[in-house]
Amino acid sequence: MKIAIDAMGGDNAPKVIVDGVLKALEKYQNIEYILYGDENEIKKYLTEENKNIKIVHTSEVITYDDSPVKAVRSKKDSSLVVAARAVKKGEADALLSAGNTGALLAAGLLFIGRMKQIERPGLLTTLPSINDENGTDFIDLGATSDSKAEFLNSYAILASVYANKVRKINNPKVALLNNGTEETKGNDVTKEAFGLLKNNKQINFVGNLEARDLLYGKADIVVADGFTGNAVLKSTEGAALAIMKLLKTNVMEGNLLVKLGAVLLKPAIKKVRAKMDYTDHNGAILMGVKAPVVKSHGSSKASTICACIEQIKMMIDNNVVEEIENELKNMSNEVEE
Amino acid sequence: MKIAIDAMGGDNAPKVIVDGVLKALEKYQNIEYILYGDENEIKKYLTEENKNIKIVHTSEVITYDDSPVKAVRSKKDSSLVVAARAVKKGEADALLSAGNTGALLAAGLLFIGRMKQIERPGLLTTLPSINDENGTDFIDLGATSDSKAEFLNSYAILASVYANKVRKINNPKVALLNNGTEETKGNDVTKEAFGLLKNNKQINFVGNLEARDLLYGKADIVVADGFTGNAVLKSTEGAALAIMKLLKTNVMEGNLLVKLGAVLLKPAIKKVRAKMDYTDHNGAILMGVKAPVVKSHGSSKASTICACIEQIKMMIDNNVVEEIENELKNMSNEVEE
Repeated sequence: MKIAIDAMGGDNAPKVIVDGVLKALEKYQNIEYILYGDENEIKKYLTEENKNIKIVHTSEVITYDDSPVKAVRSKKDSSLVVAARAVKKGEADALLSAGNTGALLAAGLLFIGRMKQIERPGLLTTLPSINDENGTDFIDLGATSDSKAEFLNSYAILASVYANKVRKINNPKVALLNNGTEETKGNDVTKEAFGLLKNNKQINFVGNLEARDLLYGKADIVVADGFTGNAVLKSTEGAALAIMKLLKTNVMEGNLLVKLGAVLLKPAIKKVRAKMDYTDHNGAILMGVKAPVVKSHGSSKASTICACIEQIKMMIDNNVVEEIENELKNMSNEVEE
Repeated sequence: MKIAIDAMGGDNAPKVIVDGVLKALEKYQNIEYILYGDENEIKKYLTEENKNIKIVHTSEVITYDDSPVKAVRSKKDSSLVVAARAVKKGEADALLSAGNTGALLAAGLLFIGRMKQIERPGLLTTLPSINDENGTDFIDLGATSDSKAEFLNSYAILASVYANKVRKINNPKVALLNNGTEETKGNDVTKEAFGLLKNNKQINFVGNLEARDLLYGKADIVVADGFTGNAVLKSTEGAALAIMKLLKTNVMEGNLLVKLGAVLLKPAIKKVRAKMDYTDHNGAILMGVKAPVVKSHGSSKASTICACIEQIKMMIDNNVVEEIENELKNMSNEVEE
């Protein structure tokens, strides 16, 4: 198993990327980690040689400010592009980056390529559930801005295989993000998607779900069009952060007893943060391309990089890409019948 | 000034509705409050006669389970329909209900009617800002599921007049909810809307805003298509509630010191709740119809009803409907030129 890793992507690259790989190496010695980036920079943090870690020197870096598609086309010797091309050529089995999300999507599409039956890949992450440890796979987080009902139907299949194979959920429940729970609710896209999902025998569709119920684990998978999915994810993160900040402000303005209360409450608040900071232990996966492509958060820590490597390992060990391709073939057969 | 009030709408109607009116009456004696509903029920809570409060008996009630448009058409003697018709006939200047939102929207459109230049009215509420006391007017919360760019442009005008006249904000800043801050970001609708807003000289457009920044008061007004607006509002509420529940769970599972901490922290948590529970002191307004139409939260308390009455009074005192009609005329003139 070989993983192509963009060592230059992310706020603290290449340090945390290298640290993350070393962390993963402690757990998994049967993976070959190929680091793409500035060799001298990488070697600053990779002090000992290890047969499982290879460095491929690249001279360019795609930054957050770069226009994704343009950068992927023009920066041919960037760490991301060379890593993506390595996956295409079969020199690696999967791609990981903590850099520019749009550029990773573009590289995934241009170099690694869509699966035959997938018109538009979708970006998936697993959100926490406040009730239990299961969580919910949320797709599409914004890979596509103008979605069609058929895209949502294919997201349901992609996510069902992922939830089943990687998260080991039997017959995972799929819900459609909508503006009401009744079947008749929605805009043109979600109304049409409801019909497709309802008639899709390859998935376990449980109906509509409203955005307010996203964190309660009511479904194992929630599918949304990319524009709404992106907005909902960002407002969820924004509201959670706002609450924590507001609490902090009120503690700072409070009397000594309130401040003491905050100190005593710290262990509980720490647990709340640990639950909500899902990006700390979970990457976003571009589903529907021909190899595992995982985006780690820009502000990833070494543990985050290690967690994303585990995610990739799970996908490869369980043949997620092949399983999805089989499901998609079955879908085409059913349509033809 | 006469306000038509649906006394039967909401979880605790007619009690809290009557209590809210009595609360408003203490402040504003120059308003005539017309209560529509079951006279016997209303009189249980309205023990003393008052010349400013009138009751109009109605025999039907539209419930949350009713299909909005159907109910508004068939339940001709419902408190909501009779109240809306009273506004149409000029017997009252504004409409207030805490009942079925869809039915209120339908009644507003069918009986009170759209302003001439408004193709689709939008639902507006003022969200809190965690940085200051100003807040942000957010429109559309879901009056329209399939929005067009022109609707978003008209929302900007509707909300600008509201923010200026009612919230007394000079030259209010308008932002467009989008999936990135750059001008080139968005789906088909927001990309087109960006162009319209940018060229609209009647408003102070400041560009795109991402959903994660909604609660930071970065703009006085945020316009969104109704589907996304609805999802973002619900995910913001859902995330805020989830954090509070998660904190509570972790306190309950914590040791005695953690529990003591929670007790001491109560005043700060209370302030967080007060800030976030914006529906407690703020209704949702159907902007773009020919009279103020305000939806109070289903679980409204008497103080909420009173706050909505204040909102209506501000709109009437400041001729918001007429001011909007003037702005819309200017818009048509500019387009013709």
